[in-house]
Amino acid sequence: MPRHPHAAPSVLAIKGSVYSTLAGRLEHFPGETYPLHVGDTWMEPAEGCRMEDLRVADLPGLHRYTSVHGMPALVDAVVERVRARSGVPTERANVLITAGGTGGLGAVAGAILAPGDEVLLLAPHWPLIEGIVRSFHGVPVEVDFIGRADSAESAIEIVERQLTSRTAAIYWNTPSNPTGRLIPGPWLEALAEWARRHDLWILADEVYEDYQFEGAHAYSRPLAPERVFACHSFSKAYGMAGNRCGYMVGPAEVMGELMKVSTHTFYSTPTASQVAALRALGGPGDRWARAARDQYIETGRRAARTLGLEPPEGSTFLFFDVSPWLGEDGLFGLLEACAERGLLLAPGASFGPYPTHARLCYTAVDPERTQRGVELLASILGTRRRR
Amino acid sequence: MPRHPHAAPSVLAIKGSVYSTLAGRLEHFPGETYPLHVGDTWMEPAEGCRMEDLRVADLPGLHRYTSVHGMPALVDAVVERVRARSGVPTERANVLITAGGTGGLGAVAGAILAPGDEVLLLAPHWPLIEGIVRSFHGVPVEVDFIGRADSAESAIEIVERQLTSRTAAIYWNTPSNPTGRLIPGPWLEALAEWARRHDLWILADEVYEDYQFEGAHAYSRPLAPERVFACHSFSKAYGMAGNRCGYMVGPAEVMGELMKVSTHTFYSTPTASQVAALRALGGPGDRWARAARDQYIETGRRAARTLGLEPPEGSTFLFFDVSPWLGEDGLFGLLEACAERGLLLAPGASFGPYPTHARLCYTAVDPERTQRGVELLASILGTRRRR
Repeated sequence: MPRHPHAAPSVLAIKGSVYSTLAGRLEHFPGETYPLHVGDTWMEPAEGCRMEDLRVADLPGLHRYTSVHGMPALVDAVVERVRARSGVPTERANVLITAGGTGGLGAVAGAILAPGDEVLLLAPHWPLIEGIVRSFHGVPVEVDFIGRADSAESAIEIVERQLTSRTAAIYWNTPSNPTGRLIPGPWLEALAEWARRHDLWILADEVYEDYQFEGAHAYSRPLAPERVFACHSFSKAYGMAGNRCGYMVGPAEVMGELMKVSTHTFYSTPTASQVAALRALGGPGDRWARAARDQYIETGRRAARTLGLEPPEGSTFLFFDVSPWLGEDGLFGLLEACAERGLLLAPGASFGPYPTHARLCYTAVDPERTQRGVELLASILGTRRRR
Repeated sequence: MPRHPHAAPSVLAIKGSVYSTLAGRLEHFPGETYPLHVGDTWMEPAEGCRMEDLRVADLPGLHRYTSVHGMPALVDAVVERVRARSGVPTERANVLITAGGTGGLGAVAGAILAPGDEVLLLAPHWPLIEGIVRSFHGVPVEVDFIGRADSAESAIEIVERQLTSRTAAIYWNTPSNPTGRLIPGPWLEALAEWARRHDLWILADEVYEDYQFEGAHAYSRPLAPERVFACHSFSKAYGMAGNRCGYMVGPAEVMGELMKVSTHTFYSTPTASQVAALRALGGPGDRWARAARDQYIETGRRAARTLGLEPPEGSTFLFFDVSPWLGEDGLFGLLEACAERGLLLAPGASFGPYPTHARLCYTAVDPERTQRGVELLASILGTRRRR
């Protein structure tokens, strides 16, 4: 057991922030900077859905706790939306309002994992899921998947190789952070069927559901409503990441267990953030999201073209192997060279076994500034010897 | 290992909400209601510190993430405040801004507990600490303490009896939720010295530091800065419970581990809530807190008088044994009789081994309505046979 002055082995195993080393460089940078390492949007949320729009005179008790389940009006609006979008019968008891997607997936990890239980992460994966699993004493198992699987059959072969007696769940994220790719519907179907065969839970991270650039998003919950926890977020959808509001949808029998964990990690989701989310759901949010999506598509495609990459299919990122441009100083050397010019990228190791990849977010600053950052990257790569 | 459809034993062991069964009764209650079961304040936060005061025009990026450490200006303001109040040398690295006190103590539990590690809870204790420890696979050990210990020596004797090879930490809360009592400074000194002798961490919950009704609050961190995690909250201090903003102060060497857990359970503390807290720290909050405290003292003393109890020493609660008024239907029967008249109280079992106690919060509704609720309670008790 760890006693003072020792910390828990689970948390010691979590990597520290991957950005902090380089992010400090930008603080006193003399010229224009390109912080394209974080996943966020440069746009302010829709009018009517901002903090300044929430007045105590109209909303007495705005600064008091809400129910730990979530504000009843917001829970109801989410139920309605989830029914309409996924087609799955959904009641209040299937929904939990959470401190963003992070709070929701944390609640799932706390509710379903015994110490040592393994969670398969389809990689490249959202970086935080690894630390979420570890925070609750689970064991993340990175599965090199996106770009490897090329059919439903190969998808199953790949995950099957990582299955052990301790596997409790499988996590996927589509549209994908960091790759900008989608997992095709038929593969998801096969994976859900495989999970059912092995009594696994499914963590379906769908926070980019509104940011799929062609076709309709393939919801995971219809495939196995008895075992899917679907993660949704107002952060990504409506430009409210700092508000910390999202929701989980899952099997009613176990949502009460999730609620116990959320109650004991952040208590209730911030009240004003829930009111803002409710207002966004009433119309302004979806209009905002459509406009944002159109703009993200254009910015993302332009950035991909500049870098000679395939156009993104969704989310807000490009993920690419820079090994041809790496010298003896490796990826860190390249990231450092970028940081010296005011440009930050996220290192591939945050997303799985990708030591020579980098991730670029093309929505963190406005489109023109993003493009200037992308061109800077192209020119830096151009000056480095191609191996 | 638990697999679908089973949840983790740790979370199954957490009690569900103790209020929910009775709280529904008040929804359609025809007359005035007295929801004195929750710990909250009826007052709106100070002007200038409300959501409506935070304008995007003045605060661009108000709805974006902040650093997971906390907004630098707020971290600096907290550092200054902690230095001034506790006298302990404090740097940025000692501070973590968290989603309320709950988020802070959750981060501590995740950072220091290995599965099965025990945490001694000086009881009656804040109800959530038990579930926080369990959420991270720790084992809460309730120690009947307040009202039992009558000297520093007996305080040590009491905790010593519960010490095992798995004990990793001790938790106390002064001023106390639920008892309204203080743990005297010399006892805290003895307990800190005892914790040092046994290599234990100390979780000092000081969220009611501004609500001690006489004398100066005895800070715990000066007693053992190398092992104390002090929990503070803007919720209680400034009437911002729904904002979910607080902070932990502790040894710099391990605060990074706490930050990993907070990053993976709620990511960053809500941005607008941090701005509101910063504004409150600039003056309006302390003025608000002084006025609130004066009013709480008066309301609390009046309520205690009406019920024939000792006046409270701090926090916002009265906690009392109702066994003389219990019939065959026990505490639940009494609470039900109260709920039928529009009055809610929290049952003693939420706070430790106190099956015949109840907790009343005298700040959840305005003073006059509180007093009418208290008089209703007195009359209900008066009509029940004293055993």
